[in-house]
Amino acid sequence: MSHIRSRFSKPADELVVRYTTSLPFDWRLYKEDIKCSTAHARMLSKQGIISAEDSQSIINGLNTILTEIETGSFVFKPETEDIHMAIEGRLFELIGEAAGRLHTARSRNDQVATDVHLFVKNACDETINKIRTLQGALLEQAEAHPQTALPGYTHMQIAQPVLLPHHLLAYFEMLERDCGRFTDARKRADVMPLGSGALAGVPYPLDREMVAKELGFSAISQNSLDAVSERDFILEYLSDAAICQMHLSRLSEEMVIWSSAEYAFVELDDAYTTGSSIMPQKKNPDVAELCRGKTGRVYGSLNTMLTVMKGLPLSYNRDLQEDKEPLFDCVDTLGDSLEVFAGMIKTAKFKPERMLRALEKGYVLATDIADYLVGKGESFRNSHGIVARLVSYAVAQNKTFGELSLAEYRQFSNLFEKDIYAVDIKSALNARNLPGGTAPKQIAQAIARAKKILAEAGVKN
Amino acid sequence: MSHIRSRFSKPADELVVRYTTSLPFDWRLYKEDIKCSTAHARMLSKQGIISAEDSQSIINGLNTILTEIETGSFVFKPETEDIHMAIEGRLFELIGEAAGRLHTARSRNDQVATDVHLFVKNACDETINKIRTLQGALLEQAEAHPQTALPGYTHMQIAQPVLLPHHLLAYFEMLERDCGRFTDARKRADVMPLGSGALAGVPYPLDREMVAKELGFSAISQNSLDAVSERDFILEYLSDAAICQMHLSRLSEEMVIWSSAEYAFVELDDAYTTGSSIMPQKKNPDVAELCRGKTGRVYGSLNTMLTVMKGLPLSYNRDLQEDKEPLFDCVDTLGDSLEVFAGMIKTAKFKPERMLRALEKGYVLATDIADYLVGKGESFRNSHGIVARLVSYAVAQNKTFGELSLAEYRQFSNLFEKDIYAVDIKSALNARNLPGGTAPKQIAQAIARAKKILAEAGVKN
Amino acid sequence: MSHIRSRFSKPADELVVRYTTSLPFDWRLYKEDIKCSTAHARMLSKQGIISAEDSQSIINGLNTILTEIETGSFVFKPETEDIHMAIEGRLFELIGEAAGRLHTARSRNDQVATDVHLFVKNACDETINKIRTLQGALLEQAEAHPQTALPGYTHMQIAQPVLLPHHLLAYFEMLERDCGRFTDARKRADVMPLGSGALAGVPYPLDREMVAKELGFSAISQNSLDAVSERDFILEYLSDAAICQMHLSRLSEEMVIWSSAEYAFVELDDAYTTGSSIMPQKKNPDVAELCRGKTGRVYGSLNTMLTVMKGLPLSYNRDLQEDKEPLFDCVDTLGDSLEVFAGMIKTAKFKPERMLRALEKGYVLATDIADYLVGKGESFRNSHGIVARLVSYAVAQNKTFGELSLAEYRQFSNLFEKDIYAVDIKSALNARNLPGGTAPKQIAQAIARAKKILAEAGVKN
Amino acid sequence: MSHIRSRFSKPADELVVRYTTSLPFDWRLYKEDIKCSTAHARMLSKQGIISAEDSQSIINGLNTILTEIETGSFVFKPETEDIHMAIEGRLFELIGEAAGRLHTARSRNDQVATDVHLFVKNACDETINKIRTLQGALLEQAEAHPQTALPGYTHMQIAQPVLLPHHLLAYFEMLERDCGRFTDARKRADVMPLGSGALAGVPYPLDREMVAKELGFSAISQNSLDAVSERDFILEYLSDAAICQMHLSRLSEEMVIWSSAEYAFVELDDAYTTGSSIMPQKKNPDVAELCRGKTGRVYGSLNTMLTVMKGLPLSYNRDLQEDKEPLFDCVDTLGDSLEVFAGMIKTAKFKPERMLRALEKGYVLATDIADYLVGKGESFRNSHGIVARLVSYAVAQNKTFGELSLAEYRQFSNLFEKDIYAVDIKSALNARNLPGGTAPKQIAQAIARAKKILAEAGVKN
Repeated sequence: MSHIRSRFSKPADELVVRYTTSLPFDWRLYKEDIKCSTAHARMLSKQGIISAEDSQSIINGLNTILTEIETGSFVFKPETEDIHMAIEGRLFELIGEAAGRLHTARSRNDQVATDVHLFVKNACDETINKIRTLQGALLEQAEAHPQTALPGYTHMQIAQPVLLPHHLLAYFEMLERDCGRFTDARKRADVMPLGSGALAGVPYPLDREMVAKELGFSAISQNSLDAVSERDFILEYLSDAAICQMHLSRLSEEMVIWSSAEYAFVELDDAYTTGSSIMPQKKNPDVAELCRGKTGRVYGSLNTMLTVMKGLPLSYNRDLQEDKEPLFDCVDTLGDSLEVFAGMIKTAKFKPERMLRALEKGYVLATDIADYLVGKGESFRNSHGIVARLVSYAVAQNKTFGELSLAEYRQFSNLFEKDIYAVDIKSALNARNLPGGTAPKQIAQAIARAKKILAEAGVKN
Repeated sequence: MSHIRSRFSKPADELVVRYTTSLPFDWRLYKEDIKCSTAHARMLSKQGIISAEDSQSIINGLNTILTEIETGSFVFKPETEDIHMAIEGRLFELIGEAAGRLHTARSRNDQVATDVHLFVKNACDETINKIRTLQGALLEQAEAHPQTALPGYTHMQIAQPVLLPHHLLAYFEMLERDCGRFTDARKRADVMPLGSGALAGVPYPLDREMVAKELGFSAISQNSLDAVSERDFILEYLSDAAICQMHLSRLSEEMVIWSSAEYAFVELDDAYTTGSSIMPQKKNPDVAELCRGKTGRVYGSLNTMLTVMKGLPLSYNRDLQEDKEPLFDCVDTLGDSLEVFAGMIKTAKFKPERMLRALEKGYVLATDIADYLVGKGESFRNSHGIVARLVSYAVAQNKTFGELSLAEYRQFSNLFEKDIYAVDIKSALNARNLPGGTAPKQIAQAIARAKKILAEAGVKN
Repeated sequence: MSHIRSRFSKPADELVVRYTTSLPFDWRLYKEDIKCSTAHARMLSKQGIISAEDSQSIINGLNTILTEIETGSFVFKPETEDIHMAIEGRLFELIGEAAGRLHTARSRNDQVATDVHLFVKNACDETINKIRTLQGALLEQAEAHPQTALPGYTHMQIAQPVLLPHHLLAYFEMLERDCGRFTDARKRADVMPLGSGALAGVPYPLDREMVAKELGFSAISQNSLDAVSERDFILEYLSDAAICQMHLSRLSEEMVIWSSAEYAFVELDDAYTTGSSIMPQKKNPDVAELCRGKTGRVYGSLNTMLTVMKGLPLSYNRDLQEDKEPLFDCVDTLGDSLEVFAGMIKTAKFKPERMLRALEKGYVLATDIADYLVGKGESFRNSHGIVARLVSYAVAQNKTFGELSLAEYRQFSNLFEKDIYAVDIKSALNARNLPGGTAPKQIAQAIARAKKILAEAGVKN
Repeated sequence: MSHIRSRFSKPADELVVRYTTSLPFDWRLYKEDIKCSTAHARMLSKQGIISAEDSQSIINGLNTILTEIETGSFVFKPETEDIHMAIEGRLFELIGEAAGRLHTARSRNDQVATDVHLFVKNACDETINKIRTLQGALLEQAEAHPQTALPGYTHMQIAQPVLLPHHLLAYFEMLERDCGRFTDARKRADVMPLGSGALAGVPYPLDREMVAKELGFSAISQNSLDAVSERDFILEYLSDAAICQMHLSRLSEEMVIWSSAEYAFVELDDAYTTGSSIMPQKKNPDVAELCRGKTGRVYGSLNTMLTVMKGLPLSYNRDLQEDKEPLFDCVDTLGDSLEVFAGMIKTAKFKPERMLRALEKGYVLATDIADYLVGKGESFRNSHGIVARLVSYAVAQNKTFGELSLAEYRQFSNLFEKDIYAVDIKSALNARNLPGGTAPKQIAQAIARAKKILAEAGVKN
């Protein structure tokens, strides 16, 4: 029976043990927990709160435990409440009574909060790294297709021609904002709760700044009641992850649509597709589909944690134990999705000839023809109406713009002249020559800018 | 390399394998899967699609596998895509070529849908059973406290006196509706998709009704495209679970508040509380807190699955693989919560004397005094105003109603007479003597009704 | 200053009034509220609780108010708390003191719960009607295209041929389950809370059954604490609506994809598409896109209400006032989506020739060729492998199955014979001749079944 | 018939108009829209794209429209698609043909994105201001109660004594992080999409930087496909709002619990509570309850928008129109909640004597007694066990710590000496004298720090 229950007349019910234990998931914090305990023990001794011998003995014991866990020889006992108790229990076995001094001036409430702060800081860093790698893959493909044009769509209707690198770099931009958000979230995770005790602070002369420095925290928390009971930093990670995974869901949708026989804009590498148990011809974009589906679990994790926090009074409540599984699942899901996407994009074969053929469908130059009329002095609104009628006519005649005679053009406006035939995909692309536009010059600059961003972030392209 | 990949020039990337495999969670469907395959094999042979020998050999092999899994000797290979492939792969090892005939006239799409239908039907039954047990615990406590009165609250302000059994049976009612919902959900899960093939039906003369009968399904699906791609039955289970867990969250909140020193209406059994690592005096209602927190994960699972399904075109898409983890987690979370609550309620010690003391605070009889005036001919709206002023006066004088003199009463209305002092907790309780009301007579009937419901459901109280 | 504040020394803060008023949205319950009050007044008099004259005067006044509201002459005063107070206030103006007797034996807690129960019952009926109309539109199109084949997709990859009516009726099935769910939800909404008072029942000899009968309720609530504080019936409507709107989101996705130039399987009627302010050629499937987007708000409403209910202690808490806006918004959004979809489907022009052309792409007969080999004695698993290699070969040769010579076929299996060329779209469709399959015979039966369902539901097709 | 429909053969169906119009909610962007159009027109003329006369005429017309809308004389026609069309339509009426030139080099896609960016930037500023005001109210109350002690709770069990200002400042800290988040969100909203055209950029020599400067944007968007179709800045506002409203839900929960008769730690001002229609004695903390309930709608809005965005391909899709209602509702709900809470907190009367009485219950000094033993040389783990047994004994004897004799103490450990009686509330508070701890000295510093923060933010306390 755990010492925590020493007030109680009977052990917890077996189902209760199963219901309340967090060891099956929080074992994952072992590294953070040992790191925190080591720093705490060192500081306790420096401050004269425990002896140097006890401190060293504790630190040695913790090192042994770290090795045991990492080599797989550590025995996780299912009846243990959590990773903190598992480590402490083992510490008692290893070093005896001195183990009991580690918990001086500390509560599990500030201990677990500190562990999770460390975890989230690290998760932010790793997530950013994985985003950078995916950005690199997008950039690589963008650079490889400087001239490839395809239809730009709105409402999934062919709208105006764009360059493939322009399309790919749209995702680079989204991911760039994701990096910004995770960087900001990291700032707020970078605050150490240790020293807050159970809720009210601790009655010992700790050196909180020393511990923070050893653990790599930039700041210490300023209110103990808040520090042990807030999970904002988890929520912020989850929110940012939901947005980032949503971005991947959009790219997934496009990869799925582009892989269809009807579009066939891309062929995903065999390593990133799977077959069917019944239909031998199938080459399914499962990775993209799963990534799109996993958006559900990331949104679900955010929803879970928001629900957990709703209406909780101060300070620590056991509900907070429910923070870890959604966090861990979200970090893994987003991380794997980013990684697998980087590989999928890097190895994808885009098909310029299919894109070109698609450009020939629809009336992708309609806006440029309207702009042509504006250039001749018509107002945009009138031009729009003229071209709309022209399109209706062409559809009825089953003709493309190029197949219309000048006489036919002039049925709709006298402003049309022979130079209308100079309006083509190339001219349309070149014309959109402003920052953010799809003109080849702009794309070259956008690629240069993206390369600079990744270089500054230390990504090898 | 799996036969499914026989069209492909290279194996799947390692991360892709990890990203796409479902074996780590869908192994749990082994029983359903073997049951379905057995019924399928028997039918294939009866219909002359495979030979009787092959069928028997398959069935024997499946039985062996079932034993292997249940005894722990089955080897789950991490590179296997899912439980269906794991079983089929082993079947090949056990019986050779004949194993290849099992998948005749079947796709994983209809196979997995059938497995999950079976799982959900069973989950509905088990959930209902656990609800019944909790209802039994509530009823037991209700019967044990026929006379115990406590304040009924609105807005957490003391409102009117109620009986404890009335309060407890409010949860009985909520749970009763939950049973109704799970019963209805079960109806819609009770439809067999097998025979839908990958998406379009199968070109073999199956006897779908025979398989349905063997598997205990009441009906077969009527549209193959729908059958392989709909997950309504999962969503309905998750919705019903969200409402049910919400009910538990309300009861949790009350147990937490009632356990506080300020209320002290209940003492939870030691087996259902836990201690603190730092504060030796603590007896925390952790089980109730965790249950309240776990509302988050149940809501999250529903949110996950709704997100997964949004905007998916027909028919099967790999996104659907994301259905299992939220389903399994939800079934477990709700089931454990119901079970642990049944024990917690059964062993809780309610404290009538504390409830009584709380009744003496506040002006819990104010409505009854207003109703007294209505009985004397005043309109309710006027009575309400009179008593509101009376309360203000009493608060200012720091007196309870009982401590006010008749003269004081009559300052507010001449209708007050000596019989005003007969208005007390008991009279207030007795007066609410309509179905659904808190009068002892009504509660006796409500208890009788609840016992009948449980008896009819076969619950031993 | 409202009589409800008679205990208070000062009026509510202006912002507080704005923050707490529900009149801007709950005015919508005026019909239900007047109906309930009328039944309550009639019963109060029948039971001798108020006089016949007062009762008649109240009922006349309420009738006047109903007319005033419906003709637009009723003045909604912004400072009024809610629709109940607005009506009661006007009643005082119209009939004087007697108005004060209407609230006898009733609280706003049971009054508003009763109003909303009536509203939800009605919403279930109307939603079902609108679903039926959409089912009718789907059925009409299914009947109009008995022979039209298109590729069935899994993973958005061409899989096997299906008939268009088979595809359309998949949605009929989903909607059929939706009807089942709303019918079940209606049962649980069909319970009258009136007579529960504020929380504990009422100290008057009401005839609850009489009121229930007049209001058309099948049952009365059995626990007053539960009845005033549960919102299950709203949550159940919202859950069912989320599933139903999700179905529409899937159909939306398909309409959007099918409207693309690359698919062009459907042309939506001009009345159901919109143009672009800048691109004159665009014909955007906005209605389908908006419907897909509105899935967000329906999910959001469910999420809102689940969050509101989490962790609320008994009985009524003001949080519950937040139930109405998500409910109203959801009823409207789903209702409008169903209606607009019925029109959109009815007027859509499907394009059999485009579907046929798509069928010619891909290797849609691969499964049938594998099944052909099974028919010749090969195991399915082996057949699958053979055909997978055959597909690889055909892709490399850029040939369709029809273009392969028998010699080429026989490179992969000696079982291929001349009759392999009889495997075609038509044979593939005909072969799937089981209930739920896509064979024309099955579809004829499915259409007959669907017509019967609608006929029994009283829908004129 | 709108010019946008000039390609179409018939008008939109009436229900379609209702279903697709956004005017009923996006009218709210009129100010942003006019501001953007004015800047656009000025730039078009400067760049020689339209004439100076046309530009001036447009700007004059827009000014007139602004006045018309703000004075209420503008006629919103229900059949108008959106606010942009409403303004443009009126502009045509006011200035004729020149109005048609305003839309040159602009699409509604980049126009609406720019309007909403402006709106969100402003919403961030206003939200931060309102948070600051609430922080001020908390700080004011903190300063007013420098010595007031109350029980600190974990698990709603009395844990250790804390100071009231410590408790109040915990919320100050949460709100401080909220300010940080909204400040970061504002950075990412502060990017101008205008100049992105419909999706691909525009074929005109715009000066995007000039427009950005006039509109107060710090940067221009770098990818047109991304700029017209991303709604990250809305999602980020909604995420931050969800966390902030969650903080308010926690404070709400505490105000509700503290207002109960059992706690009675606070009396909310009459202006912030409401009465009951049936129970004259009630004084309900409705504002706090509603705020807690409104957490649902804020979470719901976030959920809505995440769902909308899931799986949308590039670039603009009409689903995006669903962004505005959740955004507007969220900005209003959070803003009102912050404002009303500032007033509620400022006017609340905290009750030190009730808090003190609560401190006397429970064994709030247990941790301090354990720490006392640590001070005497015992390990913390042993001390914890000793005090746990001491508490069990005291409970059984129905004694407080102060009522135990030294002999009784020494039954549990010989380390207890007479100075054990010096361990009291005051010593416990004073002992927690580290940054973040509850000692009066620390609180004084925390208050000074909070004042500095608000002063730097320009808040007058």
